[in-house]
Amino acid sequence: MFAATVLTLFPAMFPGPLGQSLAGEALTRRRWSLEARDIRDHGLGRHRAVDDTPAGGGPGMVMRADVLAASLDAVALPGDSRPRLIMSPRGAPFTQGRAREWAAGPGLVILCPRFEGVDERLIEARSLTEVSIGDYVLSGGEIAALAILDVCVRLIPGVMGKEASGAEESFENDLLEYPHFTRPREWEGRAIPEVLLSGDHAKIAEWRRREAERLTRQRRPDLGRVPPPD
Amino acid sequence: MFAATVLTLFPAMFPGPLGQSLAGEALTRRRWSLEARDIRDHGLGRHRAVDDTPAGGGPGMVMRADVLAASLDAVALPGDSRPRLIMSPRGAPFTQGRAREWAAGPGLVILCPRFEGVDERLIEARSLTEVSIGDYVLSGGEIAALAILDVCVRLIPGVMGKEASGAEESFENDLLEYPHFTRPREWEGRAIPEVLLSGDHAKIAEWRRREAERLTRQRRPDLGRVPPPD
Repeated sequence: MFAATVLTLFPAMFPGPLGQSLAGEALTRRRWSLEARDIRDHGLGRHRAVDDTPAGGGPGMVMRADVLAASLDAVALPGDSRPRLIMSPRGAPFTQGRAREWAAGPGLVILCPRFEGVDERLIEARSLTEVSIGDYVLSGGEIAALAILDVCVRLIPGVMGKEASGAEESFENDLLEYPHFTRPREWEGRAIPEVLLSGDHAKIAEWRRREAERLTRQRRPDLGRVPPPD
Repeated sequence: MFAATVLTLFPAMFPGPLGQSLAGEALTRRRWSLEARDIRDHGLGRHRAVDDTPAGGGPGMVMRADVLAASLDAVALPGDSRPRLIMSPRGAPFTQGRAREWAAGPGLVILCPRFEGVDERLIEARSLTEVSIGDYVLSGGEIAALAILDVCVRLIPGVMGKEASGAEESFENDLLEYPHFTRPREWEGRAIPEVLLSGDHAKIAEWRRREAERLTRQRRPDLGRVPPPD
């Protein structure tokens, strides 16, 4: 079973949105497990300090390597083969491909930094994988961890229904998804494209493929192998 | 004041993680406001249906344009100048620059899709801006909305302390952030780089600039204007 362990100063943020809907139902059906551990349990002294001022000066506080290592070592025991991630805007961009890989594995250990960041020596000493969910700065790693777990959990076999395998969605085949339409047939003077009402499955598939290619070419040419327009 | 309105089938997911820490304190101090509206209030019939099968066939369900328009029109009244976003993996990538712009404005209206997506006609008819937080597929738009709001809220003037203006963090100046260190001076045989303990502020600033450039060159050459190594 996919077992997620999150290390955070805000354990009450979990499961949060993952306690409802698709991920929440899968949690109830024990398709995956989620444990949030409070980093402060390993804090130092009477105030359970987890951070200190940055060496060399500058704004904010930095999370201590010794405290985080103790917190990590208490959950990632010898033999635990789960990838150990640390959320960071400096990390490798998280992708759907990475999620498929992780969803097929034993789970994840995710460290959620706060403040200015963590002592660099921790990342090296514990071989953490720095992962970023996008080119922006969150107030902490918690929402990034929620995003990564949500993406992974829906890819765990048996979580989505068979009919929604995700094979046609965005980023599969390096394409954005084609546009969707549903009832009513006409709305505010706007009609559903004729071809979608034709019942001709080959034509519909062809239209969708072209729309996906057109959208990808227009919006995300960086995604790669989009053929030129016919 | 920055006013956020979220349209969702899961209003209980809000404020969620945004009710704690930096964003939560700012919410309590009324630096911003957050309202989550249930799309199902505008659902059709006895079962308050919000979706229907996709025109042209295929897996899953598509959210209806008429239901979503009613939900949107009830909150985005004439004269409301807030950007109207719809979370979608097909959207324009969310960036720190976009967040700065939005944080300086009147707030955001964010529509969170579920299922296969929404009827394309809604996006056109209501001029929604499609926004993506990254190249992966979430089970719904809610966690994406949480991420966008978290990034924006910390940039609202007065939310972060003066000492942590965010001027040196990742993506400002198109650079990743330099590595951080804090006490203890030596940990597991690893020392803090000498220069950071030198007290020479010019040298420290120079070391940090070079480290930020080195990391960016190594990990994210796509971020742009990184000078070649000296």
